Amino acid sequence: MALDALLSPRAVAVIGASSRELTIGYRIIQNLLDFGYTGPIYPVNPKGGEIRGLKAYPSILETPDPVDVAHIVIKNTLVPVCLEDCAKKGVKAAIVNTAGFREIGPQGVALEEQLVAIAKETGIRVFGPNCQGIINTDPAVRAYCNFTFTRPTPGHISIVAQSGGVGEVIHQRITELGVGVRQYASNGNACDVSIPEIIEHWGQDEQTKVIVVHIESLPDPRAFLEVATRVARRKPILAMKVGRTAEGAKAVSSHTGGLMKQDTAIELIFEKTGIVAFRNIEELCQSAIGFASQPVPAGNRVGMIANTGGPAIIATDELIEGGMVMPPLSERTEALLREKLYPEASVNNPIDVLATAGPQHFAAAINALLDDDGIDAIFLNFVTPFFVDTLGVAREIADANRRSHKPIVATVMTEKKGWAETLAVIRDSGVPTYDMPETGAKVLASMARYAALLKRPAERPASFSDVDASRARLIITAARQASRARLAADKGFELLTCYGIPVAQYTSANNAEECLAAAAEIGYPVVLKVDAETVVHKTESGGVVLGIGDRDALREQAEQLAARFADASPRLLVQEQVPEGREVIVGAKAVEGLGHVVMFGLGGIYVEVLKDVSFKITPVTEREAQEMIESLQTYPLLTGVRGQAGVDLEALIEVIQRVSQMLVDNAEIRELDINPLFAFQNGAKAADVRVMI
Amino acid sequence: MALDALLSPRAVAVIGASSRELTIGYRIIQNLLDFGYTGPIYPVNPKGGEIRGLKAYPSILETPDPVDVAHIVIKNTLVPVCLEDCAKKGVKAAIVNTAGFREIGPQGVALEEQLVAIAKETGIRVFGPNCQGIINTDPAVRAYCNFTFTRPTPGHISIVAQSGGVGEVIHQRITELGVGVRQYASNGNACDVSIPEIIEHWGQDEQTKVIVVHIESLPDPRAFLEVATRVARRKPILAMKVGRTAEGAKAVSSHTGGLMKQDTAIELIFEKTGIVAFRNIEELCQSAIGFASQPVPAGNRVGMIANTGGPAIIATDELIEGGMVMPPLSERTEALLREKLYPEASVNNPIDVLATAGPQHFAAAINALLDDDGIDAIFLNFVTPFFVDTLGVAREIADANRRSHKPIVATVMTEKKGWAETLAVIRDSGVPTYDMPETGAKVLASMARYAALLKRPAERPASFSDVDASRARLIITAARQASRARLAADKGFELLTCYGIPVAQYTSANNAEECLAAAAEIGYPVVLKVDAETVVHKTESGGVVLGIGDRDALREQAEQLAARFADASPRLLVQEQVPEGREVIVGAKAVEGLGHVVMFGLGGIYVEVLKDVSFKITPVTEREAQEMIESLQTYPLLTGVRGQAGVDLEALIEVIQRVSQMLVDNAEIRELDINPLFAFQNGAKAADVRVMI
Repeated sequence: MALDALLSPRAVAVIGASSRELTIGYRIIQNLLDFGYTGPIYPVNPKGGEIRGLKAYPSILETPDPVDVAHIVIKNTLVPVCLEDCAKKGVKAAIVNTAGFREIGPQGVALEEQLVAIAKETGIRVFGPNCQGIINTDPAVRAYCNFTFTRPTPGHISIVAQSGGVGEVIHQRITELGVGVRQYASNGNACDVSIPEIIEHWGQDEQTKVIVVHIESLPDPRAFLEVATRVARRKPILAMKVGRTAEGAKAVSSHTGGLMKQDTAIELIFEKTGIVAFRNIEELCQSAIGFASQPVPAGNRVGMIANTGGPAIIATDELIEGGMVMPPLSERTEALLREKLYPEASVNNPIDVLATAGPQHFAAAINALLDDDGIDAIFLNFVTPFFVDTLGVAREIADANRRSHKPIVATVMTEKKGWAETLAVIRDSGVPTYDMPETGAKVLASMARYAALLKRPAERPASFSDVDASRARLIITAARQASRARLAADKGFELLTCYGIPVAQYTSANNAEECLAAAAEIGYPVVLKVDAETVVHKTESGGVVLGIGDRDALREQAEQLAARFADASPRLLVQEQVPEGREVIVGAKAVEGLGHVVMFGLGGIYVEVLKDVSFKITPVTEREAQEMIESLQTYPLLTGVRGQAGVDLEALIEVIQRVSQMLVDNAEIRELDINPLFAFQNGAKAADVRVMI
Repeated sequence: MALDALLSPRAVAVIGASSRELTIGYRIIQNLLDFGYTGPIYPVNPKGGEIRGLKAYPSILETPDPVDVAHIVIKNTLVPVCLEDCAKKGVKAAIVNTAGFREIGPQGVALEEQLVAIAKETGIRVFGPNCQGIINTDPAVRAYCNFTFTRPTPGHISIVAQSGGVGEVIHQRITELGVGVRQYASNGNACDVSIPEIIEHWGQDEQTKVIVVHIESLPDPRAFLEVATRVARRKPILAMKVGRTAEGAKAVSSHTGGLMKQDTAIELIFEKTGIVAFRNIEELCQSAIGFASQPVPAGNRVGMIANTGGPAIIATDELIEGGMVMPPLSERTEALLREKLYPEASVNNPIDVLATAGPQHFAAAINALLDDDGIDAIFLNFVTPFFVDTLGVAREIADANRRSHKPIVATVMTEKKGWAETLAVIRDSGVPTYDMPETGAKVLASMARYAALLKRPAERPASFSDVDASRARLIITAARQASRARLAADKGFELLTCYGIPVAQYTSANNAEECLAAAAEIGYPVVLKVDAETVVHKTESGGVVLGIGDRDALREQAEQLAARFADASPRLLVQEQVPEGREVIVGAKAVEGLGHVVMFGLGGIYVEVLKDVSFKITPVTEREAQEMIESLQTYPLLTGVRGQAGVDLEALIEVIQRVSQMLVDNAEIRELDINPLFAFQNGAKAADVRVMI
């Protein structure tokens, strides 16, 4: 695979190797040696000599045999020349640990651009700069190309982190919890080898069962989205949501841009790809362990077994809040349990086997749940009473796990030294064990969340064939040529019409006479609007007159508007007065490197006061459009409350998809607001639209 | 103090002592011995002999010298007689570990009632039954009157838990984290000695700095509320919210009762008393450690110091989401930092001292924050780079902590074996250290939450002197004598009037003629309503006619209503048609043993669809009434949006307080709904009211 040389190097050089212990050039060599790297290590130092018993070479060009990976740990300004030497030598990938690049400003940016240019020219891959490096625990490799301190055991979790600090915290925590890691990568400034490439690589690495990702920003969100979508269908990708509050307090306006928080785009990407997102490193690490050792549940129906009540209540709260359900058990299961458990035991879900329950009771309960088709996953809440054969219980849990195709997650509440063997038997069987009921419950809930993501059909976005894409292109192109930032009102409506989005009938007019002619076509009552690029908030500035009933009124209003907005040299728009419907908004905003984010919400106070809106990334599929609508807090207002009829949801779902298609075809659209879009019992109609390009 | 004999016993007997290792009667003796109990231990067993080298007595009556605490670990049916013997002996408190009481049904309830009766009669206190017991780590006592496995070190956290299982998990976790515990109590069925009594006791125990509480239900919520309010002003009480989802999925109606979830009352009690509530045992334990070792911050302004960026972002997210602010530092502080830190360091908040920062840099940053009056608390994010004198950094942190009056909380991200000494220096100084940035941040945020609770003025509820409480009593009494469950419409309005709550002018009528007379007084237009105890939803059933403009219309409507509802033998209510205002609801529901919970929300779809309502327990103070209004998501609709004027918030605050006073005076009111209450720019008026008694 593409990154094999980097992630499974057959020989490693360290340029800038040092024999001073507190330097990175020493530390990497020490780490490679201590971790038992299986290939040759070539220290490179102009002074030559020996470092930790290894011969040092004065230059990378003088090292013997092929080198897959060269660490570069020298002064930033010397890195480009050194990288060229590496390329000459035939080094496959350089891990540039040295800092002092993009992160220090313009000078650093220039230096970093040199590295990218050399990489492109020579084909050498650059990892970093300003980065930690990689680790591969594969017994055939054991490459610790990194200066960090965590010493992982081999396992199935692979970790990639933009922030080395956070990467190390995750890596350390998983290791401390006694669980193995497959590979680790933290690529700092990421000027060449990217996080999506690494994820792609691990998607194909059989030994990687779970991918853990930490990102703070996405240089190429579309590439990330595409790779993550592909890989997340094969194996779970777990990621942290960070920077949630950075812009959270920013004043919000009623426009799409303002309503979208700083981190919304990353959250939307996670959601669209099927990444399991976390707000908390600890939960992410604990979940990674669950995913690494247990199968994904077939659904969200959990059966719980407890031998004490209090922790079971806490676990239930978390499971239910995490989206799981605790269905009643089948009659057969209940009968079985009644026969095999103590008479005072509770055979409902959760099953309380009682504190005095021994191995045979636990075995009976677990087996009953394994055999109950109404249960997808088993949650154990096990406090270790001193008067119970806990080791026997542990052996039954381990046995059941070996036979089980359903995930089993356990909370074992105990004193770890006294019950070390009990704990070890459960853990070694592959059942993840947690100290706290809420921790285990959150892990299982995250696994059910992934199961739900996997079940989403791999739907294609609709492609409506009745659109006139070429006319739309002409509208956009003409506006660009005229250097307009905002489309004229009639052009905005025309654009919508090109994509089959129903609009209130409209005609543009230059003066009162033309208005009258237009109204004669449209039929009274009509709406009159001022249309000028400089008038942004036309309603607020009195540029919209509703319900004009006849010719005289129209003439008067048209003359007044023309006079009032004379400075803006406006045109006028005469429009059909649409019947009252439910006001909704469909908006969109371009996101650099990603496409567009589409917004949906109810208009008026619902958007302004309650900020009750939903977002999706283009292209928006039918299912996603439906989710946008159904996820609103105000959704019941659309289906009908207090005797009111609901609106045509199908029509709204179609409008959202048609808007999405329009946005995909026309990347130049910077912002879009269809506000209001009136939704009726049958159909919907756009009454106003603002298109920024 | 009242519970001294129980919690600091000078001699302990174990009735039902056994020499079989897997029994509770053996385990308690073993625990007392192993933990080094300082008083005499008297095993009681009819067979006599020796247990663990201690002489066993055939009966409690034969034990020598006074006994403060007797464990009772014998068959449930034998407990009452045994308890009587204990009383005879002069035992101060009996810890009844035996199960088989209230929790097993009617027989058990009867047995438990016997215990309560004996306690009342003899003055012996009963702890339990069906419980673990108590632990006191005081070196002068060292009483491990419990059969659990956790071995605490002496400290300042005291834990009381309704569920022994959860209590043990909390106790175990705090101990595992290396932090000391002062006292522990889990009182199971709690038939006599109650959790409020224990909290009261610890409120006066100087060595208890933090009280941790786990409750699942409250037998006497008012007692809990009163004690917790008193104690929480002196020291932090931390509690878990449990049973959150039990009834969460229950269908909700538009009435107060339906909108209040199962756990709302307990949450409201926590909030009213000033308890710091948690959703998660782990966070509760970690926070307890913070509270036990650090002062409460003066406010919520945090200064952060980090030597790596990624974790700082995560901590910032949590701190801000937890209600803290990260203000810019003073100019003086910035200047100081610019002088003392590396030139590339960031001197904003968070301060990034850089990965290469050594002891002097950390010292400078901490001291700068200690001296900055704009900062209430310090958050350290410390990754231990191998090339830094981390021990030196740790010593600076420890030094600063000794001088500091501001809380310092640290996240130390490291490999715990390699950096054991660094960690120990920080921990031993009393700075709580956490593995994860989010954990430490949540702890500090919880401390700031407590600081905010402490700052709430100890406000008394208003007592309006213009109320006619005796007339109100007469209305209620008369309705009860008439066996009405719901007050007649006019009586409901009269009740409000007694408490000075403005109502739309109304008159009750028996027929069309009386309606006409009433309307002549009130003035047209009027509203006509049917009033019959059996017609519960009068609007839905067509029993309300709005906007009746003249005599003829009124006569016709009155006759129609009388005919339509003839079966219900209705009266009619003629009412002033109040001008349009903002519709709000004030509701209330009685909660057994507590008083009432008052509800406030906007009417119509806001309550029905958005369920946007707030609750407080009576008596509702002015501040609380204000919080009820301001905490609504729809609050901006009350202050005015889109050019609309706001409504008279003062008037609403007053109505809520008057309703509260009415409820406190009239415990018989079971449910109340003032719906709608119209709020105007000036004043408010109740247009309808339903009072259930």
